[in-house]
Amino acid sequence: MGIVSEVRALLGAAHVLTGSDTARYGIDTTGRYTAVPLAVVRPGSTAEVSEVMKLAHASNTPVVPVGGNTGLTGATHAPDMLMISLERLDRIREIRPASRLAIVEAGVVLEKLHEAAAEAGLRYPVTFGSRGSCQIGGNLATNAGGSNVLRFGNTRAQCLGLEVVLADGRIVDLMSELHKDNSGYDLRDLFIGSEGTLGIVTAAVLKLVPATRSHATAILGTDDLDAALTLLNEVQEASGGAVEAFEFMPRFYVDQYREMRGDAQLPPAADHEVTVLLELGSASARDAESNGLAEVLEEVLGRALESGLLRDAALAQNEAQRRAMWHLRESAADVILARRPIVDTDVAVPLDRVSTFLDMAGLRVSSIDPQAEVILVSHLGDGNLHYAIWPSREDTALQDELRAVIDDVAVSVRGSFSAEHGVGLTKLGSMERLKDEVALDVMRAVKKALDPENILNPGKLLP
Amino acid sequence: MGIVSEVRALLGAAHVLTGSDTARYGIDTTGRYTAVPLAVVRPGSTAEVSEVMKLAHASNTPVVPVGGNTGLTGATHAPDMLMISLERLDRIREIRPASRLAIVEAGVVLEKLHEAAAEAGLRYPVTFGSRGSCQIGGNLATNAGGSNVLRFGNTRAQCLGLEVVLADGRIVDLMSELHKDNSGYDLRDLFIGSEGTLGIVTAAVLKLVPATRSHATAILGTDDLDAALTLLNEVQEASGGAVEAFEFMPRFYVDQYREMRGDAQLPPAADHEVTVLLELGSASARDAESNGLAEVLEEVLGRALESGLLRDAALAQNEAQRRAMWHLRESAADVILARRPIVDTDVAVPLDRVSTFLDMAGLRVSSIDPQAEVILVSHLGDGNLHYAIWPSREDTALQDELRAVIDDVAVSVRGSFSAEHGVGLTKLGSMERLKDEVALDVMRAVKKALDPENILNPGKLLP
Repeated sequence: MGIVSEVRALLGAAHVLTGSDTARYGIDTTGRYTAVPLAVVRPGSTAEVSEVMKLAHASNTPVVPVGGNTGLTGATHAPDMLMISLERLDRIREIRPASRLAIVEAGVVLEKLHEAAAEAGLRYPVTFGSRGSCQIGGNLATNAGGSNVLRFGNTRAQCLGLEVVLADGRIVDLMSELHKDNSGYDLRDLFIGSEGTLGIVTAAVLKLVPATRSHATAILGTDDLDAALTLLNEVQEASGGAVEAFEFMPRFYVDQYREMRGDAQLPPAADHEVTVLLELGSASARDAESNGLAEVLEEVLGRALESGLLRDAALAQNEAQRRAMWHLRESAADVILARRPIVDTDVAVPLDRVSTFLDMAGLRVSSIDPQAEVILVSHLGDGNLHYAIWPSREDTALQDELRAVIDDVAVSVRGSFSAEHGVGLTKLGSMERLKDEVALDVMRAVKKALDPENILNPGKLLP
Repeated sequence: MGIVSEVRALLGAAHVLTGSDTARYGIDTTGRYTAVPLAVVRPGSTAEVSEVMKLAHASNTPVVPVGGNTGLTGATHAPDMLMISLERLDRIREIRPASRLAIVEAGVVLEKLHEAAAEAGLRYPVTFGSRGSCQIGGNLATNAGGSNVLRFGNTRAQCLGLEVVLADGRIVDLMSELHKDNSGYDLRDLFIGSEGTLGIVTAAVLKLVPATRSHATAILGTDDLDAALTLLNEVQEASGGAVEAFEFMPRFYVDQYREMRGDAQLPPAADHEVTVLLELGSASARDAESNGLAEVLEEVLGRALESGLLRDAALAQNEAQRRAMWHLRESAADVILARRPIVDTDVAVPLDRVSTFLDMAGLRVSSIDPQAEVILVSHLGDGNLHYAIWPSREDTALQDELRAVIDDVAVSVRGSFSAEHGVGLTKLGSMERLKDEVALDVMRAVKKALDPENILNPGKLLP
């Protein structure tokens, strides 16, 4: 009996899709990768995931776990492979407000967790564009980032405990609820970010933080990035580290946004070489009553305008204005992906090297394709740049060259060629070219130790 | 030529100690483990650590790395093994205030880093009793915790990048300065907390936080722990998460302190079933100017006294009073270790199960040794209890039984038998008895992948 029949016998025919029924799983969000998987199976529990893996292991069948399938690196590409969708493991098992934690299954959609936390007066702070469809298991598998990493860290920083099914079907119980636990190697963080190549995440214990009670949001305009970074440190000093977002948009991005949305939509102060969206947040009742955040921000911005550090600044006076400011930033995917061909990257560089990186990268792009246009937005507060290029012509070799050059420049200033999207398939070349060789060897040794038959998401992450 | 002669030729005789010259390395801080190592070598650079490891690897010589040797689990016990002391790798290579990071070598004493950060107007937030002699390499090898974990996380949470020498002498360069870096498996966190069994930490990139500009410190008295935890959440709500320490001391501990130090030393409000030392901290200039933290705290404590949640509370009015409050807590080692025999543990339990744990553990101890006395202090804010027992008599079997029972009870409420001290030798039994079996298997597979000859700190951490 083949693996597909075996899995059908195990889960029932309704939860084993083949052929055209797999279509929506077989194409990724970028449209770059399409494939017909051997089958898509939808186990309903950790025990069933374990049983499926035992069958796959016995028959040496390659397996690709999939969550919301919103990744950007082709990490769920599964030609002729068995896809395990975690969508039916969608229960929020517990929200424990006194201990500030949530126990969730892998298939829970991020936005559902946001809602459940909010109902308990709490907050799960990781958020990004695909929150309405991405799943917690995928967030953990890719160590998802987003706009709040500056204050709260990435997905790894939110996770206290994890449950994982191994390549051979055994279940690892790391479901700790503890903030301190030094009982052996940190397997949790090894599985987080391993893109389904070391095990399949089935459940997690996640930290929650107090709900935000007040915001202060502003658009800042200045001529250069270093001024913006100086201001960031000043706001952090004055507010005691309350900055939740510090998002940089260069003039060219703002111009494209305006062209797409019209002048009316543009928030005030957004018309400068360097436009920054700044948001402070506080969970304190006192700050909410006294409007304390806005006062702090007004004071710092006032000084910065006087001293010439800033050219322009506008504070949101109400929620509608705040939303208009965020709209400018959150339209990035629409604005940047509106034109094709496109070369998109996801690099991070040390904060004090962002300007250097931009200068170097700009020169390299121009020298390769003088008519190319660079369009980017950046989580500047953590050095993460979504640096995209609109090349002058459709030419795969040119696009590959441009992508490689951006990765090279990032690493040359001690940055990374993958800030938050992971490696998957798209960054295997950079991984091979740019990652420390000994680190790569250690990763290969770890992969071999945990998945000796190489059945878990083969061909991804490790060149 | 034997390994000792080879290493002498490499490093010079002055940096290779043998026989009685090794005495201060051969005894641990608890006095429980003494041994004569084969030799203690003191390389002066990462390259030299690498060369020493190549020699050790070629000759299959077991190696034990050692920092300040302040660990409490026998993890540096090295009978007839080669000890590598990192003490000469003691440079703070860079403090970069704009990027809020420090690049340090493994042998830097924790307190030196505190001082260097303070000079730059910043703070390295990990701190604990042995800060004057413990070293950053050891802090990383054991993922050191302490009193500020509640707010800032443990050592792992401070580390951006790491340099590690492997069992075969190769150097892994993971010296990232990035807050976002998803380029492959998280090897950094795998090495952190691995107690020298997977590699030798030689350098690290550490995060710094803004210096604290104001404190509000108080002693709280109440009758039960749940009231204390309710209050913790109220203070966190009101202050926006500014609690840096929430340290619980039961009456018996306070009585012993008073006996040792005299009544005069006792801070006000410390005479209750449950005494808590609470400290808020803020880096904000505004809070410092307005005395904002003290106002918040007064308000919350006022309400709690009125409602009966608290019986008593006293705010430190000046630095001398604050120091007296901390003295009560920081005398724990002196007070608890004053009597022998002693059974000391280091457990963590979920916050909402601390009372349950204490009830269960107390009953078990009484049933085994009715005359035993329990003395403890606790980083209550993160569920970490240093639960110690003074048994009625000198009896190794009894002590071992008591220690095992405490670990068992902690794990039975989903806690851990090692919160912050690690496993080393003392907790191998609990590791074998209580750790998830599949997790143990994965750890063994990882160990074998990275150190196939088992020369790095053999016999520690993994049963």
